[in-house]
Amino acid sequence: MSSIWGERLKISLFGESHGPGIGVVVDGFPSGITVDVEKIGMEMGRRRPKSSAYSTPRKEADEVEILSGVFQGRTTGTPICGLIRNTDTRSQDYERTSHLARPGHADYTGYVRYGGFNDFRGGGHFSARLTAPLVFAGALARQYLESKAIYIGSHIYRIGDVQDVGFDMTRISREQLQQLWRMEMPVNDASCANAYMEIIEEARSQGDSVGGIIETAVIGLPAGLGSPIFGNVEGRLASMLFSIPAVKGVEFGTGFAITGMKGSEANDSFYMDGDQVRTRTNHNGGINGGITNGMPLVFRVAFKPTSSIAKAQDTIDIMKMENAKLEIKGRHDACIVPRAVPVVEAACAIALCDLMLAQFGSQGQ
Amino acid sequence: MSSIWGERLKISLFGESHGPGIGVVVDGFPSGITVDVEKIGMEMGRRRPKSSAYSTPRKEADEVEILSGVFQGRTTGTPICGLIRNTDTRSQDYERTSHLARPGHADYTGYVRYGGFNDFRGGGHFSARLTAPLVFAGALARQYLESKAIYIGSHIYRIGDVQDVGFDMTRISREQLQQLWRMEMPVNDASCANAYMEIIEEARSQGDSVGGIIETAVIGLPAGLGSPIFGNVEGRLASMLFSIPAVKGVEFGTGFAITGMKGSEANDSFYMDGDQVRTRTNHNGGINGGITNGMPLVFRVAFKPTSSIAKAQDTIDIMKMENAKLEIKGRHDACIVPRAVPVVEAACAIALCDLMLAQFGSQGQ
Amino acid sequence: MSSIWGERLKISLFGESHGPGIGVVVDGFPSGITVDVEKIGMEMGRRRPKSSAYSTPRKEADEVEILSGVFQGRTTGTPICGLIRNTDTRSQDYERTSHLARPGHADYTGYVRYGGFNDFRGGGHFSARLTAPLVFAGALARQYLESKAIYIGSHIYRIGDVQDVGFDMTRISREQLQQLWRMEMPVNDASCANAYMEIIEEARSQGDSVGGIIETAVIGLPAGLGSPIFGNVEGRLASMLFSIPAVKGVEFGTGFAITGMKGSEANDSFYMDGDQVRTRTNHNGGINGGITNGMPLVFRVAFKPTSSIAKAQDTIDIMKMENAKLEIKGRHDACIVPRAVPVVEAACAIALCDLMLAQFGSQGQ
Amino acid sequence: MSSIWGERLKISLFGESHGPGIGVVVDGFPSGITVDVEKIGMEMGRRRPKSSAYSTPRKEADEVEILSGVFQGRTTGTPICGLIRNTDTRSQDYERTSHLARPGHADYTGYVRYGGFNDFRGGGHFSARLTAPLVFAGALARQYLESKAIYIGSHIYRIGDVQDVGFDMTRISREQLQQLWRMEMPVNDASCANAYMEIIEEARSQGDSVGGIIETAVIGLPAGLGSPIFGNVEGRLASMLFSIPAVKGVEFGTGFAITGMKGSEANDSFYMDGDQVRTRTNHNGGINGGITNGMPLVFRVAFKPTSSIAKAQDTIDIMKMENAKLEIKGRHDACIVPRAVPVVEAACAIALCDLMLAQFGSQGQ
Repeated sequence: MSSIWGERLKISLFGESHGPGIGVVVDGFPSGITVDVEKIGMEMGRRRPKSSAYSTPRKEADEVEILSGVFQGRTTGTPICGLIRNTDTRSQDYERTSHLARPGHADYTGYVRYGGFNDFRGGGHFSARLTAPLVFAGALARQYLESKAIYIGSHIYRIGDVQDVGFDMTRISREQLQQLWRMEMPVNDASCANAYMEIIEEARSQGDSVGGIIETAVIGLPAGLGSPIFGNVEGRLASMLFSIPAVKGVEFGTGFAITGMKGSEANDSFYMDGDQVRTRTNHNGGINGGITNGMPLVFRVAFKPTSSIAKAQDTIDIMKMENAKLEIKGRHDACIVPRAVPVVEAACAIALCDLMLAQFGSQGQ
Repeated sequence: MSSIWGERLKISLFGESHGPGIGVVVDGFPSGITVDVEKIGMEMGRRRPKSSAYSTPRKEADEVEILSGVFQGRTTGTPICGLIRNTDTRSQDYERTSHLARPGHADYTGYVRYGGFNDFRGGGHFSARLTAPLVFAGALARQYLESKAIYIGSHIYRIGDVQDVGFDMTRISREQLQQLWRMEMPVNDASCANAYMEIIEEARSQGDSVGGIIETAVIGLPAGLGSPIFGNVEGRLASMLFSIPAVKGVEFGTGFAITGMKGSEANDSFYMDGDQVRTRTNHNGGINGGITNGMPLVFRVAFKPTSSIAKAQDTIDIMKMENAKLEIKGRHDACIVPRAVPVVEAACAIALCDLMLAQFGSQGQ
Repeated sequence: MSSIWGERLKISLFGESHGPGIGVVVDGFPSGITVDVEKIGMEMGRRRPKSSAYSTPRKEADEVEILSGVFQGRTTGTPICGLIRNTDTRSQDYERTSHLARPGHADYTGYVRYGGFNDFRGGGHFSARLTAPLVFAGALARQYLESKAIYIGSHIYRIGDVQDVGFDMTRISREQLQQLWRMEMPVNDASCANAYMEIIEEARSQGDSVGGIIETAVIGLPAGLGSPIFGNVEGRLASMLFSIPAVKGVEFGTGFAITGMKGSEANDSFYMDGDQVRTRTNHNGGINGGITNGMPLVFRVAFKPTSSIAKAQDTIDIMKMENAKLEIKGRHDACIVPRAVPVVEAACAIALCDLMLAQFGSQGQ
Repeated sequence: MSSIWGERLKISLFGESHGPGIGVVVDGFPSGITVDVEKIGMEMGRRRPKSSAYSTPRKEADEVEILSGVFQGRTTGTPICGLIRNTDTRSQDYERTSHLARPGHADYTGYVRYGGFNDFRGGGHFSARLTAPLVFAGALARQYLESKAIYIGSHIYRIGDVQDVGFDMTRISREQLQQLWRMEMPVNDASCANAYMEIIEEARSQGDSVGGIIETAVIGLPAGLGSPIFGNVEGRLASMLFSIPAVKGVEFGTGFAITGMKGSEANDSFYMDGDQVRTRTNHNGGINGGITNGMPLVFRVAFKPTSSIAKAQDTIDIMKMENAKLEIKGRHDACIVPRAVPVVEAACAIALCDLMLAQFGSQGQ
């Protein structure tokens, strides 16, 4: 088991960075949903390498060919396969140094895991390029969620040591989220965008890289989604989010900072707002006992700095099992975080769509 | 789906806090493993309520009756059911206030999820008491792992605003971990234990509670465990760890703090230590691309303050749907973290055992 | 993986014939269903060894203790554990001959599978006694189905070479099925009951055993249940039915006999019966393309003769790996078929309940 | 859930008969297996429509493009996607009569299942054309099995009322199976081939169709494969086999006919053949208690007559919900059985490969 996820909405990813193509099979998606090709294109575009300084110069059109599961513009209810051909592959970048394990990457671990038979070029199946079909699957899931008035949006909470203003976790509007979708560097405090760009540019110019934190909010979720113990929303989301390359931490609501609070502060008091149940604060991020309480679902995802850097690094030669020096010549993002925003949202959409379908059924939606 | 987890080692939890009993079915455990009843008892004992100030006065022997799967002192390979009878239940504590949603708890969300039919007494199936059978299952998993020289240990990294010395992530010994097992308040810097106790006691005396962070290390794991994308070790562990009540964050290696590093720092350079592959630093927590690299696996888990506090709280009456005041009279831990240590280790053991069996098979182990 | 089944209604069986107890955890069952204890008792009673000649003299009360998941007489929505204590075990019957592989049984294969560590007494986890908790789980599933006006009934289609009148597959009434529930030897043609008894008695008197075929019908299923390819109703049912010990064949509708027909005969023509879609014949057993068409679902299950017979048999000693003679002294049914009727219905109910919950959701049912 | 199957070897089918393409993702296949393209082509060729009278004139090259998971001629261990483009589609055949439910087909049930949104052309995702990627996945599984000296072969046991000589279930050689692979109409008694052809030709000339039975044998399986209860080999195989369109029955060993035997006959006595455990007879088809015993695994699969026939049929119009007459003009096999032989073997290979990997692990194979 490696590349299939889900209980009711099952997604099955395939492909290698430098193989013929990458893609995804989405099984269990409800029938009759109109496929909004433009929206899919918009999501794919948000993930695509940018002309900006921080982004890899690898140019991929990332056109998704839908091979199945859509008929006369609507989903059929049977598996949807989306295929993306690889075009701009420069495998020679990798072949020269294929025996040198790039630090921070899966070269060494993949070599051990697969006995040396994995496709090493560009990270093979481990490549962040596999997030492209994930975004495609997520775009479908988002259309399903939006048909239920559930919206997902994110801002870049931190890059390096600059930090944006966090969401007001008790009060997030659809307009606020939609505005963030349209920003190449989505932030709540506009001044952060430039500061982030500067940090990234500085790292790039040093042949180095930086990481960051994405904060994501979901509004419109019904109360009562999720199940106790292993069916909890946090665990389902986290298992999906850690599948995104470079993620090293996931926290919900106030997250790690909640550990410094008293219970009387961390407990979000309930109150009636007209006939609606709400909480005064939202340190639990919209989840109590693993189940949504109707408040905004908020979580944060930590991305490490891009592992591929231009600077020379110490490493080992995995064939000869001896120390070696590595200089990476490939094309890479100095900071993966801006392009990771739609990926986090896609992962979130898939996990929530799966939970919705499991609980409410796929029929008659 | 709610209370079953696992690919090859499947565990199925059942029971409510105030019902006849709680337990677990462990399916897929290898045959022929000697069941060390004493070690199981030791793990159960670590989780059991303590006489100490910070712990609930509810007294449960938590004797596990093994109903199946063990014959002549060894596992048979068929499902192992462990049953724990509930004895010291004081349901009247809950019945008086059953219509008042305890803030931070699953009372409201469980009510919505199950249409009001869930057992509300003591949190029912949402109760942290369900971690007792989890520890039992974990004790079995640990015996399997220890037969492969894989050891798990933890210390309390933080309570309130006091912080222990973290693990040296490149160098953790079996002796260090075993020593931590024997401490009621496991810490690396002995002076922290008292500081922690004082914080907890202070919170308790104020009718309040505190949270904290547990840092866990696993040594002896082979390189090459785990799979790309959805089979990654972080995601598998996280999906299990978020199943523990009160967990709001999970991070690996340097975790959220890695986001402030440069790539040249965060990348753990490989080097040959004799014929062994090691990394100079271990910011990735022993995992590259979702797969173990042979270095210690290190992660941190954030626990929110105990939701049940003596202080009066604002809330709602879920029957009448109106605002209300709540005073909780039950018996509760002022800080769940010390008792959560063996639970985190159990969850970790189960997830790793599942990964090992999936990859290497359950036969001939 | 061995003893857990299901997509949305997951059942997890545990226990050995001569261990402390056997049972089942039922996960994913909807909340708020009134548990009809009397009906559960009736189903358990149908499976329990009878005083009749054909049945084992082992006497088990088979009282199910519900340990969880039921509160104030209704299901909570969280896992339901049913436990049955073993009482009348005579393990000495097995210990004397534990090294002799009983032909037709799992003694040899279980020994190889588990490296000799499985509990051999009475077949251990392989024992047909494990069908008792299956019947309990099935009784719950039936209550769910009956709340949707879906009914399951069976008759014994054949024992030895005597054959009952088959169901008229286009026209089966609830009354007909309910009448069959009340018969100890359920048949459509009353004269068969005695003929069956005579065949069984004759076999028993010869120290031998006989097998037979059960024909089961389900009425009231909505059209459109099931999914293409691997989600097909036949495959889901068959995977469950082959879990019943001694089953060697499963067929739907006209089954194997359909292979001798022409397409023009085997195709069940559709027609409108008022505003209802029906088929003139029902050779497909109510299933087209793996999905129900609203006609009665009909299938047949072949049971081999009871493997445990009094007659001396050739076999091997699995310790010494040499030829041996075996005389079985245990207590066994000369024909398992009559007691298997409620087991087949339980398996069918569980599989259909799982399909219903997957498709229509567990919430708001 | 519909089109994903497997515990460790997961296969995910996608595509519609008249869409852009059909294919499969194979997840969990071991790394380092040399992909024998010629053998894959041979298996695809066995399934491909023949020039013979009994076969559809639809001509599909069925070239499989391997999009991922194979590098330098060997499997990488990551998902293998095989894509087959649809070329010779004549959708107009279906559009004219799309509102008329073809008897025996999934037109009506698929319409209800998916609310009318499924792709009706050529049966869409329900089409037997989806068995092409299944054969591709099976060809990979067979290469894995053959590397362990496990071989699968079949003959056509019956067509209409003509019956071939069955396998001698105690003694089946690799040569016998390989010889059957090479026959377009595989039979044990050569004279049957012509008789079968005549029956099929006669049906075709009448605008009708016939069904039949395939008998399959597997040799070389180790004893001890499979698990008790839900992990039993029969159930795993059956759940896969019923996924093949037109299958209405599956039986193991002597199957339904075993119900007429006495236990003393049906029990296959064990004996030592040198140091090998064997049984004198093999009525249990190589399986005891759901687990292989080392004897040949033998089963039979019943196929109904092809549902698509030229003869006029009564049916309903699913749009207008009224009675109607249907004449099918498409291109169809008068008997699906000969082309189903490699499909049954593929399904069998996948199920066995999954069981092997689950039990023995995917690593170090």
